[in-house]
This record gives sequence, C-alpha cells and structure tokens, in this order.
Amino acid sequence: LGIVIESSCAGMGTCGKCKVNIKGDASPPTRAEKGFLPPDELKKGARLACQAMPTGDSVCVIPPESQVFGEQIMTEGVEGHYEFAPDLRKARLKLPAPRLGEKYFAFEQLLRVLQEQGIAVSGYDFATVQQFSDLPDEHYREMTAVLDAGRLLAVEAGDTTASLYGVAVDIGTTTVVAKLADMANGRILAVASAVNPQQKYGADLISRLKYIIELPGGLELLHRLITEQINSLVSELCEKAGIRGHSIYKFVVAGNTVMQHIFLNVSPRHLAYKPYTAVLQGPATVSAHSLGLHVNKCAVVYAIPNLASFVGGDITSVLTTLDLEQQQALHLVVDIGTNGEMVLGSKKRILCASSPAGPAWEGGYIAWGMRAARGAIERAEFIDGTLHIRTIANAEPVGICGSGLMDLVGEFLRTGFVARSGRIRTPEEAKDFVGKKMANKVIARENDASMLRIADVDGKRFIALTQKDIRQVQLAKGAIAAGIKILLRELGATPADIAAVYIAGAFGNHVRGQDAVDLGLLPDIPAEKIHFIGNAALSGAEAVLLSRQAREKAEHLARQVEYVEVSEKPDFQDLYVDSMHFAVGEL
Amino acid sequence: LGIVIESSCAGMGTCGKCKVNIKGDASPPTRAEKGFLPPDELKKGARLACQAMPTGDSVCVIPPESQVFGEQIMTEGVEGHYEFAPDLRKARLKLPAPRLGEKYFAFEQLLRVLQEQGIAVSGYDFATVQQFSDLPDEHYREMTAVLDAGRLLAVEAGDTTASLYGVAVDIGTTTVVAKLADMANGRILAVASAVNPQQKYGADLISRLKYIIELPGGLELLHRLITEQINSLVSELCEKAGIRGHSIYKFVVAGNTVMQHIFLNVSPRHLAYKPYTAVLQGPATVSAHSLGLHVNKCAVVYAIPNLASFVGGDITSVLTTLDLEQQQALHLVVDIGTNGEMVLGSKKRILCASSPAGPAWEGGYIAWGMRAARGAIERAEFIDGTLHIRTIANAEPVGICGSGLMDLVGEFLRTGFVARSGRIRTPEEAKDFVGKKMANKVIARENDASMLRIADVDGKRFIALTQKDIRQVQLAKGAIAAGIKILLRELGATPADIAAVYIAGAFGNHVRGQDAVDLGLLPDIPAEKIHFIGNAALSGAEAVLLSRQAREKAEHLARQVEYVEVSEKPDFQDLYVDSMHFAVGEL
Repeated sequence: LGIVIESSCAGMGTCGKCKVNIKGDASPPTRAEKGFLPPDELKKGARLACQAMPTGDSVCVIPPESQVFGEQIMTEGVEGHYEFAPDLRKARLKLPAPRLGEKYFAFEQLLRVLQEQGIAVSGYDFATVQQFSDLPDEHYREMTAVLDAGRLLAVEAGDTTASLYGVAVDIGTTTVVAKLADMANGRILAVASAVNPQQKYGADLISRLKYIIELPGGLELLHRLITEQINSLVSELCEKAGIRGHSIYKFVVAGNTVMQHIFLNVSPRHLAYKPYTAVLQGPATVSAHSLGLHVNKCAVVYAIPNLASFVGGDITSVLTTLDLEQQQALHLVVDIGTNGEMVLGSKKRILCASSPAGPAWEGGYIAWGMRAARGAIERAEFIDGTLHIRTIANAEPVGICGSGLMDLVGEFLRTGFVARSGRIRTPEEAKDFVGKKMANKVIARENDASMLRIADVDGKRFIALTQKDIRQVQLAKGAIAAGIKILLRELGATPADIAAVYIAGAFGNHVRGQDAVDLGLLPDIPAEKIHFIGNAALSGAEAVLLSRQAREKAEHLARQVEYVEVSEKPDFQDLYVDSMHFAVGEL
Repeated sequence: LGIVIESSCAGMGTCGKCKVNIKGDASPPTRAEKGFLPPDELKKGARLACQAMPTGDSVCVIPPESQVFGEQIMTEGVEGHYEFAPDLRKARLKLPAPRLGEKYFAFEQLLRVLQEQGIAVSGYDFATVQQFSDLPDEHYREMTAVLDAGRLLAVEAGDTTASLYGVAVDIGTTTVVAKLADMANGRILAVASAVNPQQKYGADLISRLKYIIELPGGLELLHRLITEQINSLVSELCEKAGIRGHSIYKFVVAGNTVMQHIFLNVSPRHLAYKPYTAVLQGPATVSAHSLGLHVNKCAVVYAIPNLASFVGGDITSVLTTLDLEQQQALHLVVDIGTNGEMVLGSKKRILCASSPAGPAWEGGYIAWGMRAARGAIERAEFIDGTLHIRTIANAEPVGICGSGLMDLVGEFLRTGFVARSGRIRTPEEAKDFVGKKMANKVIARENDASMLRIADVDGKRFIALTQKDIRQVQLAKGAIAAGIKILLRELGATPADIAAVYIAGAFGNHVRGQDAVDLGLLPDIPAEKIHFIGNAALSGAEAVLLSRQAREKAEHLARQVEYVEVSEKPDFQDLYVDSMHFAVGEL
C-alpha cells in the first residue's frame, strides 16, 4: 500500500523497529519477536512486521513510529465521514431495438434511456458522441455509460461496470502524493508519492511565478513537469494495484492556488504582484487527456476550488475533512509551510488568512538548515543535561530541518539558553539556568555572533543554531501568530474560545504541540486541544472523489469562507513585532 | 459576390448575353448596349454587365439566364425573413480593479460582469479559462467576450467587436457551398463553392457508407477530405472579402444526415442497412478546431438538426426558409436528387419522407447520361417540328444531364414520341402524332431496342434517349410521386388541397414546372403554384447563422416534423407501380 516500514536491519529480525499490531490470523511469534516484545504486548497483538505472516483475514495497524516517510512525504490524513456515493459512476443500459420508420437517433435514444433510469444527463463533450458512434456493432445495444456528476463522459460496449477507478492527488509545492481508489466500493488500493519536479525551477512559489513571468513557455514547461510526474505516479499506482491506466476515469486534485493553476495550465502570474489575483476559483472540471494525463481518454480532473489568492484548494480540501461549519465553538486550522494558512471559525462564520512565513521551515536562511531528508535533525531533547537528537533515517546528522529547528528552539527556550526575546544568552547569563559546564559546552561565539552547538560531526565539524537562525524562526512564527491574532480579533474572540486546533500538512505533523505553544506560534492553549491531521489535503481530495456530499461541501465552503488580508490591517506591523517574542522563558 | 455572369465574348460587348438590370447611378449606355438592347428596355434599366459601370449607389439585378452556374452549383436561395439577431456576438467589458484583500478571481469576476450586463453565461470550455489567463497584461482590464448562444467562447484583449464573421455552409453529396457573413450587420460578403471531394470514394451516399464500413480509417479520410475542402473555401472567402480566417468564429452547416455525420466525424455506418439508424439528430455544437477547421481557435460549428435517418439537416434548413408551420393550407416541399425528400404539411401537422430515386437525375444508368457539366444537354424543346437543345456553357453536346433528361422526356411525351406508359412508339405509330418525316428521323432501333435520336455529333456519332433510359426516369420519378401520394393520404388530402409546391435543391432549380407535372413527378397542380427556391439549404443555414429565431425554428421543426416510412406502407408497391405512368399523353 505504499507504506514503508522501518527496518534498519533490512528484515533480519535484529533491530526490533518494525513493530506493528496484528488482529486476526497470523503465524506464531518467532524467537526474534519474543526477544523484542514483552509477553503482555505479544498477547495484545504486537508483532514485528519482518517476522509475522498473516495466515488468514487480518488487520495490521502500523504505528507512525514504525513508518519511514521517505523524503518525509505525508500520505495519510484524518478523514471526514461521508457516505460512499461518488459523482463518478457507471450505469449499464440497453438501447431499444429501432423499428424501421421510427425517428430513431441512437445517441438521443441513449440519453432517453438514461433518463428513464433516473439519470439526467446534464451535458457531454462532442467527443463522447464521436466515440459512441464508433462502438463495435456486436455490442451496439448493450453498453455502459460513464458519468460524472451527471455529465456523460463515455459510452462503452458491453458491461464494464467492474472497472472504475479514481485517483486523489495532493499537489504540494514540494511533494506530490496520489491515492488510487476502487470506485466500485471506495477502497484505497495504493498510494504513491514523489517530489514535485518543478523544484528545479525554484523551491518556493514566488520563484516559480517569476520563472513563468520571465520565460516564454515557462508555464507550459512547469505544467508538463507536474503532469508527467503524476503520470509516473499513476503508473506506479496501477502496478501496485494490478490495474490498467485505462480504468482510471477521474482525478480529484487539491493544491495551493499556484500549483492548481499550473497543473490546469492556467497562468498564475498575477499572483506574483500586488494585489495578487488568481484567475480561477473553481471548481474546475477539465479533460484529463487535454492536460496530458495518460489514463482513460474520457477521464476528468476535478480541481477543488480555492478560497482566496493564497488560500488554495488544498485548504478547502482540509476543511472538508473537518466540520467547522457545524461547530458551536471556534475551531482553528493551521497549515504551516513557506506560506502559512489559517482558518478560524464555527457555524456562524469562517474566516481564512494567509501569511508569508518565509522559508525557515524548509531550512531556508538557516545556517545549517536543510530539507526534511536523510540526516536532517528532526527531533531534539535535553535529557539529564544532555541534548539528544534524532535524525531522519537515523543517519549521521548533516543539518537541521523544520521540525528539528522548532524542537531545538523549544528546548533552548525551556532550558534557558535562549531568552523570550530570542536572544542567545551569554555563557555567563546561561549558567544560572543550565549550569556552567553546559553553558560553556553549548554556547559558542564566532565572528562576534553567538551560536548554540548541537552536534559534532567527525570530531571536527559541528552543527549549530545561530542567533540569526533564531531570528528567522521568530519571523516565520510571528507571521502566523499575528495572523491568528487578527482572525481572533475579527471574530471578537480570545484564545480561550478556541475549542480545538488542527495542524495540517506534512511539516505540521512533525511538530510537537508543546513546541508550537512554547514558541508562540499557536495561541496559549492546552496541548491536548492540538490535533495533528497530517496530509488532510489528500484526505479531503479522497473524500471529494468518493462522495458527492464532500464535493458539495467543498464547493459550499469555497463560497462561504471569508478572506481576511491580515497584512492590510493598520496594526498588523505592531502585532507582528509583538508576536515575534516567544511564549516561554524570561525576557 | 461569387456570381459568375454569362460572357461568351469575354466582356468584349459582342455577344449580348450578360444582360442585367441596374437601378441607380451608372455610366451612360455604350454603342454595344444600344445595339443589343431596345430603347424601351434601356429606359427601364436594362444594361450589359460588361459595359455598364456604377457611378454611385446602385442595385444590380442579375437574372438567372445571365448567370453561369459553373459546375451547376447553386449558391442562391429564397430566404425567410428573420430579424438580424445572431446567437454569435461579442460584448465589450471592463473588469473592476481588484482590491488587496478581496476574494478576487479574475475569471469568475468576468462571469459576474457579463451577468451585470445582462449576459448570462451558460457554459464554457476549460480552454477558455486557459486562454483568458494568457491575455497580455496591458489589456488585462479592457476586453471583449465572444459568446455563442450564451456559451463563452473566448475573451480577447481590447475592443475587437469590429471583427466578427461567420460562415454558412451547405454540404451536399456532390457540392459544397459556403457564404461569408459579417456578423456585425448580417451582410453577405462572399460566396464560394466547390465539388465535394468525397466523390472520389463514391458518387452516392451508399457507396460512401460502404467505403466507411469496409476500410479502417475510412471515416477519418472522408472527414478530412470535406474539412480540407471547407478550409480551402474559407481561404477563398477570406481573400474575396479581405478578412483573416482568425476573424471567423462560427459555421452553420446544413447537410444530409450522412454528410453531416461525416463532417462531424461521427460514424454514419448504421445508415447503410436496415433499419437505417443515424447516431445523431442534433443540433450539435462542436469546436471547429477539433474538426480541423482553420479559423479562430475558439470557433464553433453548429450543425442544423436532422429530421430523420434520410431526411437530414439540409431539409430542416430548407424548412426554416419557409413557413409551413404557420400555414392553414397544405404546402409541399420536394428536394429531388439521388434521394428524394418530401415534406408536406400545414400548421396542423407536418410529415416528411424520403424515397430512393436512384441516380437517373445525376446521369446514372442513362445511356448518354452525365453530370450537369460542360456540354451536357440541359434543355430541349420542339419548335416548329425541330428539336432545339441547349447545353451547359453552350458547348458541343456530349451527353444528357438530369434537367435535360426531364425536359427531353417531357417533350417526347407532349409530342407523342413516347406513350403515357413510357413506351417509345414505333415510327408507324408515331407518324400520327409527329408526321412521318420526324418520326423516321428521330426514332431509331438498335439491338432490338428503340431509341430517340437527339443530336448528331461530328456527323457520325449521335446522342440518343433509349427505352431503358425512359424506364429509369419512370423509376426515379415514380418513387417520389408515390411518396407524395402516401403523404397526402396520411393527411387525408388530395392534390387539390396543395396551396403551393416548393422545389428545392440545385437540380430542382433547373427543372421546368410543367415537365414535373407532365411526367407525373408532382401531383397535377397548376404550374404557377410551383416555386423554385434554389439552394434553400444554404439560405436556411445563413438564416440560422444570422438569427436566433431561425435557429430556434430549426430546432423546433426537428422535434415536431413527423417521419413517414413510405416503403413500409402495405400498398407502397402498388402505388409505386401506378406512379410510374406519365401524366400526359395516351397509353
């Protein structure tokens, strides 16, 4: 299913990292399992994935800590609950035999027969008529209609109802994830993910917009890169599930406004400069073939509508997995990335905003910063006066990724190395908090600037967090915090009114709630109110693919959610500066 | 305007065949004109087209006898009267300037602005969004929308309202005619015509259907032939009118069901065998680009809907130029060709039928038969006991075309060479009618069969009408006559109830009303009730292009007109045999 399980020992049963839980019939525990897993856990179904073999129907739960997220691509999210009733469907039908002398036109007959079956066809492309006219004669009277939300996509000879698949896609600035669903029953058959190859032309949205504006054919090129990447994900999905691409009839796509525009081959260039307008809100339903996707020729792409210029269909998609519009109390949704998006609301009113958080969370402008890839420090904790770090893939540390950055700043704040103002304390000041030995070991100075040493590499080089890095974190988190404050004020609310916070997105899922509160990224609320919903944009796309109800909710939200331009508020600058201070520690 | 005027002397003023009538300012009559035209005619405006020059606003009427119909392609018809209010239109608009913080999506704004201008957009292709997003920035806020019947076809930068053209096309089995209209005012700017290049693959519909069924790619090939021919007509129209193909946004196409299907790239193959079903009634609106037409990329093709399997959009188009559906009394419309189509009705009920008349009217199965081309005998008349013939282009006679065939049979019937039963009389019998000398000169026998000598060529060879030829004429006219009789009977009417007969089509226009009645092709009605409406299919297409009202009428007729399968009536064979007798002469 595209889930990669931790296996440092390559499945030899010697590392014990591939812990899973199996309910149902499985082979008896091996010696290796008995070595790693206490008897009471074994009794409850704990197993090592490299040892246990299912011997009958069984359910295997893979805890996150046993999974490798490759290049940290989130494929899982928390799903909303919708009835399985997709827009995409197939219907068998039989045309009545024509009588000589009847005013009989086969295509119009087809529409009539569908109507008699309760299926009102709301439209079709002329290509459908052409394709219909070309059906082999022997099947002429028994056929299967393919429909999407009332639109007739194709007519196939014979009964093809068993072959109907759809793909939900999350197109992120950095990564692309796709899920294959069997549209006969809603089951997810495979997941595949890859990096967004547009990264060659700029890591962030602004550099890609610049590329499109400055280079003739730039849009076309970026468009082709992403569609080809999706084609290759589709091949992978088909191989995993053992189906043919020809059986895929629909894509539901969630992406930020720029990614959505590029994928749909619509120029997003006006998003590059004030007043930052997009061309299309959507929803848009587009021929997959016309976009260059190699699936069934009649397949469609449904792009989830955007909320605002920089609050895209990915956020709408996240919201379809939640139920803000039914809640009495305020709920906050935050997606943290280069651009931070925030949604705050309840059944009364829902507001959204975006805030340019800068590239710190992706390692940009951070001295030892790097992407969430092999060797990146992603976790840090002081235990008994020693800083313990964890790197991605447990590799030799090579740098600091976003979640590591947040963890490190959190730890340095809580321990007292860093003041609430963001200033790195001198060893002299710090010794009152961490003791002299630690202060001298960690705090260093270079070129008149302070830094915090995190790890030594090869005994010579080291990895550190600089004063400038901390300032970058303050800028990044300040923008989001200020945005949340403005949204709260617009609704006349305080942090205490927030019943729950949902952190969406790949990055968010690697953040610790306490860090987010301690840094002051989130308002001061109990950590238990913070929920990590993972790649909810993908979950939302999946819901929209599988349920008309979810699709209608997405479209409703796109119309109803109001946009607040936080940077236009007269006191935004003040709030921003205020929000740069951290929430814990002394000044 | 694509009208070719007779000019045997190539405009030297020496043949006097280019007689026209000019109302308005023109140069004074020349010596040549005074020689050919009597003073009283000159006074009334009669002129020779090669001599007179307009010197100011003037109207020139070109009588049919002064026109050359080239390869006998009819480009003119009688037009219905509709207000000029086309579905195709352009609308200028200006998008409001976006404010920072507004939920502003340019394309959705555009739809809103159009709605505020009273233009409800009923749909658009996604390509329109892509194209809109690509407009040059400097024109971004002032633009022109192109719409067809509420469908948004394109958005153009700046004010392009002055450039909007449309083309009406009649796609016949034999010929294609196209008219270019300025959609700003409805004026016809140019006409162009050509043969249908599909003729290489069969002169009649059945052989083309056979080609499509038997050859893989046959449909595609025939489709490409016709679209390429139309592209070349469009080039010609553009050159004549001095416009660019890019300014053409719409085609309205009238054609029989097979021609329409092939042009739309929809397989018509089920029309080849019982129960003869077509795929599409229509109306169909299709992207011109997708069909391979080289005009504006957003242009559409509107195909006038069919009435029945073998009563196509060309007949619907003919009906839009008339007003059967408003008449108290019965009106009859007949289109004579390889296939004869008949429509009979009034405001109460309208019936249509088709009857396979066979290829006689196109020279098929006729000993000296030929198409209506140079040297074909197209008129014949006995004057003072001598048979006078007229050939196309006044060339040396080489054969007999459809109208000549009808004229000859009519003359031979009226003079008594041929009996009402269709039998060629022996010279002995004929001498009572035409005199011994004439009888012996005209009636010949060869291989035990009679024939009527029409013309001598080179003193050695001759052109004649054989007994078999006359039988072919009887079959061809009998099928149509029987069809009309059945339609009359279905409505409980007699020929006396018919208030008017309209003969449509290129061939019909060359027929003499008296011949049609004398041969018994038409019921016995006074010749003055017979009207020749020329290429009314093209006129109808022009009306549909220029008026929403005409288009709605065509669609209404397509639904309302009932089809009668005459061949299925139990007494059809009897009626058919009865109808083979001619209407004049003795048995």
